[in-house]
Amino acid sequence: MKCYNEMSREELLEEKASLEKAYEAYKAMGLSLNMARGKPGAEQLDISMPMLDVLNSASDCTDEGTDCRNYGILDGIPGVKKMFADILDVQPDEVFVGGNSSLNMMFDTITTFMVKGVAGCKPWLTQEKVKFLCPVPGYDRHFGITEYYGIEMINIPTDENGPDMDMVEKLVSEDEAVKGIWCVPKYSNPTGITYSDETVRRFAALKPKAKDFRIIWDNAYVIHDVSDTPDSLLSIMDECKKNGNEDLPIIFASTSKITFPGAGVAVMACSKTNMDVLKARYTKQTIGYDKLNMLRHQRYLKDSAGLRAYMEKHKAVIAPKFKCVLDALDKEVKDTGCAAWTKPNGGYFISVDVLEGTAKEVVRLCKEAGVVLTGAGATFPYGSDPKDSNIRIAPTYPSVDELAKAADIFCVCTKLAAVNKLMA
Amino acid sequence: MKCYNEMSREELLEEKASLEKAYEAYKAMGLSLNMARGKPGAEQLDISMPMLDVLNSASDCTDEGTDCRNYGILDGIPGVKKMFADILDVQPDEVFVGGNSSLNMMFDTITTFMVKGVAGCKPWLTQEKVKFLCPVPGYDRHFGITEYYGIEMINIPTDENGPDMDMVEKLVSEDEAVKGIWCVPKYSNPTGITYSDETVRRFAALKPKAKDFRIIWDNAYVIHDVSDTPDSLLSIMDECKKNGNEDLPIIFASTSKITFPGAGVAVMACSKTNMDVLKARYTKQTIGYDKLNMLRHQRYLKDSAGLRAYMEKHKAVIAPKFKCVLDALDKEVKDTGCAAWTKPNGGYFISVDVLEGTAKEVVRLCKEAGVVLTGAGATFPYGSDPKDSNIRIAPTYPSVDELAKAADIFCVCTKLAAVNKLMA
Repeated sequence: MKCYNEMSREELLEEKASLEKAYEAYKAMGLSLNMARGKPGAEQLDISMPMLDVLNSASDCTDEGTDCRNYGILDGIPGVKKMFADILDVQPDEVFVGGNSSLNMMFDTITTFMVKGVAGCKPWLTQEKVKFLCPVPGYDRHFGITEYYGIEMINIPTDENGPDMDMVEKLVSEDEAVKGIWCVPKYSNPTGITYSDETVRRFAALKPKAKDFRIIWDNAYVIHDVSDTPDSLLSIMDECKKNGNEDLPIIFASTSKITFPGAGVAVMACSKTNMDVLKARYTKQTIGYDKLNMLRHQRYLKDSAGLRAYMEKHKAVIAPKFKCVLDALDKEVKDTGCAAWTKPNGGYFISVDVLEGTAKEVVRLCKEAGVVLTGAGATFPYGSDPKDSNIRIAPTYPSVDELAKAADIFCVCTKLAAVNKLMA
Repeated sequence: MKCYNEMSREELLEEKASLEKAYEAYKAMGLSLNMARGKPGAEQLDISMPMLDVLNSASDCTDEGTDCRNYGILDGIPGVKKMFADILDVQPDEVFVGGNSSLNMMFDTITTFMVKGVAGCKPWLTQEKVKFLCPVPGYDRHFGITEYYGIEMINIPTDENGPDMDMVEKLVSEDEAVKGIWCVPKYSNPTGITYSDETVRRFAALKPKAKDFRIIWDNAYVIHDVSDTPDSLLSIMDECKKNGNEDLPIIFASTSKITFPGAGVAVMACSKTNMDVLKARYTKQTIGYDKLNMLRHQRYLKDSAGLRAYMEKHKAVIAPKFKCVLDALDKEVKDTGCAAWTKPNGGYFISVDVLEGTAKEVVRLCKEAGVVLTGAGATFPYGSDPKDSNIRIAPTYPSVDELAKAADIFCVCTKLAAVNKLMA
């Protein structure tokens, strides 16, 4: 197939007719497929069913002397703290184990800084202006938190090494209103890229103008490989400590995509200074999170080695799904030159940049044909993609068979929207 | 025994000598007993062990078509909403099911009003002055939340019918800075009293000066009877609706003292107007709470009738513990006239008013003899009991044998502190 840019009007017309025919055929199938959210599929959930047997009516529910059924222990049971400390390259006493949602812990962290402040500074809510840096494309739920609080969001372009660090350094060192940055440093949502060692080192060496600037380091996909050549990520905490910057990062992770999305265990990790501020809130907010669920996880997954080994099971299910979508894109779209995409070694997404000005149209066409995608623009603050080009594909939820159809439809829609745009 | 007030100095001296002897004997026993927190004992936790068998690796984890293992459903699964709607006398669509802690839901509610406001009013954090009414004695963790946010707390005296409603009505109708009131309307923490019908009706008929005034109705002990003549509480929501005041109450409850304190299910209920404000936050804060734990609870407890019947099991364990403490007080302290206490029909506490100016000393003496009580003053805002008289006794955690010893020690300490005070 020829590149669309090199096609004559006649050739484009012919391509358009052929694509419309294929599109109508798909539409007639009355499909209902969903590639919208980073949701594990049923087969992945089944992997963790044995965890439900770990605690039963005959179980001893004590852990190191603590009855996990009762009140008590604010920051989580020791085994889970240790397991995640290993995974996140931090110390166990830097870890706080929460409920079932790391998003909730991020929200509460931002909330604390809004109402109480951090680093002895005034609460963000009472500061004249608060800005957040948002590497794009990024995670819509991150942007949702800062938007909820009226925090001004600034787009930071990213490439295969991570955010544009020249821009980050400049803004962070010059503008006291810049209080934070949203990062998904490994298998980033949605591009799947992992921050390079240099990027991590530059983050760790930041000299923020604002004493209360913080890096929200959402390591959601820290061990979520889909390839046999996984990426590796430098320890942000170790690097920060080298620079006396250990108060910069606040790190998050969870088992949402390891055990059960609806019933996992979330954690955060940070320096003692930050933890003191956050624990002052936790102490008032709750007597403690669900320790039985922590215990269930600990006894089931054992330790960080057990956790890493466990991820192989997920990889076996997910890798073919990534391959399915990527193969379709390679086969159907590559030669046309009307889209570019990432081939991640892990995470939950494939990020596709379709022809500029056609992302919304591609999503609409897909929806008409029964394939739901994440809304175009969702990967940008305020839901606004300046180029109307980025689409996030989440290949994990459908079965491979469904996915093959959905991917084909996506390819047809991507090409059809491009041809229409080129001929307009 | 004679009333201390009627004793001669000589008689008091004799009593003191006898009490000191008893006290030293207890001290020599090197006991370690705890009546500090409203914590279920191990026997109560054992009641709910079969709940851990409800979901196992062979279970169908779907509920009305929703896979409870996965992401989804922000406000909780329908069966749990219905169960608690029945218990709390509200509609299912007025219920939101959260994580394991109703305290957390209260904290987040106050936080929302602090940073976003409610009823179209400015966020409390940006209003000049915010005050909360605090019926005393009350629940220390409630006061902890308002103290954390720098909200000024005003003591409201309570009697057997609930808070002094003349004072509540006056303050609420005259002072726009009064934004809320903490209530534990049934088997109140710590007095164990239940608000009378008239009290509930007067709450429901309040005409607050502040449009954003809210009643925090913590119905923590809604079905937690310890007697065969339980109290009954009028439905605050029904009464409020009669007055067009349905936006006033925000209701909370949980299974923390029904199943597992560390792994229960918490709920809140409120009008649509309030729910919209709170859901605007929940939507950004989380994808949803632990639905597997909700499902576990629903399948185990079935419905509100099942829940009510289940409470009989707790009553059978707790009632003898309440009796043990009350019998000791009756036998050892009553005639001396040096303390007064409540005889609650439910809840988790016995509230004792010892001789004015001796509560701290009683707690200290008990501690020296190996019996930990809630700190004196904890039942008042800022930890400050103006009369230094109220002590909260939590009889549920120790065994009856331990409790008998602890109650005896408490009686001795109460009398010893009184005698010392009277002779000073």
